[in-house]
Amino acid sequence: MQDSTISFKKPSKEELLKRIEKIALKMTEKGINFSIFFQNIDIYYFTGTFQRSVLVVTANGEYYFFVKKSTERARSETPLDIIEETDDNKIADLLKLKGIKGICGMELDVIPASLYLKWLKTLSPYEVIDISSLLRDIRMIKSEYEIDQIKKSGEITDGVFTKAKELLKEGKSELEVAAELEAYGRKKGHPGTLRMRGFNQEMDNITITQGISGTITSYADAPILGSGIYPAVPHGASLKKIETAMPILIDYGACFNGYLTDETRPFVIGTLREDFKKPYECVLEIINILITAGKEGVNTVEFYNAAYRTVQKYNLEDYFMGYGEGKVSFLGHGIGLEINEFPVITAKHNIILKEGMVFAVEPKFIIPNKGVIGIEVDFIVRKNSLERVTSYPYELTELE
Amino acid sequence: MQDSTISFKKPSKEELLKRIEKIALKMTEKGINFSIFFQNIDIYYFTGTFQRSVLVVTANGEYYFFVKKSTERARSETPLDIIEETDDNKIADLLKLKGIKGICGMELDVIPASLYLKWLKTLSPYEVIDISSLLRDIRMIKSEYEIDQIKKSGEITDGVFTKAKELLKEGKSELEVAAELEAYGRKKGHPGTLRMRGFNQEMDNITITQGISGTITSYADAPILGSGIYPAVPHGASLKKIETAMPILIDYGACFNGYLTDETRPFVIGTLREDFKKPYECVLEIINILITAGKEGVNTVEFYNAAYRTVQKYNLEDYFMGYGEGKVSFLGHGIGLEINEFPVITAKHNIILKEGMVFAVEPKFIIPNKGVIGIEVDFIVRKNSLERVTSYPYELTELE
Repeated sequence: MQDSTISFKKPSKEELLKRIEKIALKMTEKGINFSIFFQNIDIYYFTGTFQRSVLVVTANGEYYFFVKKSTERARSETPLDIIEETDDNKIADLLKLKGIKGICGMELDVIPASLYLKWLKTLSPYEVIDISSLLRDIRMIKSEYEIDQIKKSGEITDGVFTKAKELLKEGKSELEVAAELEAYGRKKGHPGTLRMRGFNQEMDNITITQGISGTITSYADAPILGSGIYPAVPHGASLKKIETAMPILIDYGACFNGYLTDETRPFVIGTLREDFKKPYECVLEIINILITAGKEGVNTVEFYNAAYRTVQKYNLEDYFMGYGEGKVSFLGHGIGLEINEFPVITAKHNIILKEGMVFAVEPKFIIPNKGVIGIEVDFIVRKNSLERVTSYPYELTELE
Repeated sequence: MQDSTISFKKPSKEELLKRIEKIALKMTEKGINFSIFFQNIDIYYFTGTFQRSVLVVTANGEYYFFVKKSTERARSETPLDIIEETDDNKIADLLKLKGIKGICGMELDVIPASLYLKWLKTLSPYEVIDISSLLRDIRMIKSEYEIDQIKKSGEITDGVFTKAKELLKEGKSELEVAAELEAYGRKKGHPGTLRMRGFNQEMDNITITQGISGTITSYADAPILGSGIYPAVPHGASLKKIETAMPILIDYGACFNGYLTDETRPFVIGTLREDFKKPYECVLEIINILITAGKEGVNTVEFYNAAYRTVQKYNLEDYFMGYGEGKVSFLGHGIGLEINEFPVITAKHNIILKEGMVFAVEPKFIIPNKGVIGIEVDFIVRKNSLERVTSYPYELTELE
């Protein structure tokens, strides 16, 4: 199904086995005897295929990959051994036969209660422990293969921001521009899916906001989600018409080969309104400070604090990362196969930056009844620096 | 955030209270004392707002609507009374204080195990019962308000199929056409979200398939899901270039005001290849038979059987609704706020059609190593007939 215009690389068998080894090690540390993975993107991480299946990993690093549908497609995609089995009871019997028992890890953060209860009955493990944070811990450090995929995702993002310069026009609606940029990204290889882990999570590929449409508080853990068109889908671009002088934020989530990037750029048609200049300077200063400070070994709380001190210097605390009940506690979040990976960068979560982490930082200000300004940039943690994922300048783009 | 180009109506308070009354009645019948709803689109169905919240309904029809975030947005959207409470323990205390206890319904099909376990501990109900099928039962019958929304969703679908006549060209890729049609639909008011109930479910707004890209078997419960571009996102349009004479299927899911339509049209550039003529005639005959047979009182199994007898007449059983392990058991499915609502139309589920049901029927043939042909049409059940949701002809569209 490929053609020469979009080429991608599958993860190698060696890479997949290394990932399985990593989770097995974490399980051993926590006294978990075996884990069963059900969520398709988690299974993809370990196997390279997203087909309907159940993956069992034991603490000593063995795996049993039961594929239900499509076995044909799974065979063509994964270099791992597969077992063609669709019946859950038979899977449970096989595990008992192999002596796989004891304390069981499951993705309790995402699997439905009904699935959990069914497997609890089928397997009768001694105990079930939530494996999700261990899984997210190992996924936090990306391999060079994964970083390559994220960079290719970033190329789509670069293209979208460049295209935006041409498409943003006074009088067009946020929705119109969003639709056009989305189509542009799709043609460059965005499959249209942007995965966010967890219950009740929905994520738009693109959110364009200007003025009050960006200030509407939202149900989600996001500082600026857009007002959307309907209460039934309360996020994303609105029907608001683009004006001059007001900052326009384009928050774009690209996907390439399953890997995501998540960046925001401010645009303005004409000259930026006076009342947004100070918040914009603050946002820019934060990004520059973080770029200078970031490298392996830095504590993410220090990272957050460095940003927050800048916010205090500008006396903009009330508007930082939301306003009133719309405020969120994080400044940044990991990206990878899901848009809300680890690390989370907040004032409270002490995480030491390690080479291979990839995250977005998104200092944003929401000024009630006025508008929004912010920048979001993705970084790869390196030994002595932060490496940018994309190349489109993060400074305000001024359009005529 | 509205402008004059896309206007929509909110559900009335009377309508929302009627829905709450309906579920309370079902609960009484099943001996469930109270239910807690957590999934945002389920809460939207009862309240008209999608904000982060917990909705409690008792068997005697009382409701307690605890809104966590955004209370501001929820207040502006729902005509129901809200209680501003973000703390789950306090919600549990209040329920105890009100004497709300006993057997509790929860959406066990969608709420994560961790959420279930937490509330089990917080509430200590006598027993927890899955409320999802009762909820889906009441949602199966649409009000005239809901049918209006679905028809407006259908207008977007009509526009997309009409636009496709202009955009489908030999040599363009499936992906290119998909991106362009998606953008067209977005501008007409599609918010970009297409909800499918359940774990591990993903749904593209549009799937364009031609030839082998449509024959690839998939992980999902769908006869034709498309091969997509990457194993990580194994669905949707592929990079395959559009050819003449081969049928092209456009499966489009529209969304207006939260309500979905789901239709498929076959297109061909030039004259349809000889080997697809018989399956196409069969598909068309099935649709025509169903239109003639459908009305209130008909059993969906009879409906399925009428289609299947036609398949047998054409000797096409092997290819109907998939091939080999890709075969699915359903011919149709309900549509509404989610794309997989009740009724499901299969050979086994005896459901009596009732006025106000809205469903898609999608006779499709997958001919291995060759291609796909099929039609999908949405219908509203009326006393003496089936009413079409859209107006674009369901017959093959021939392009030059």
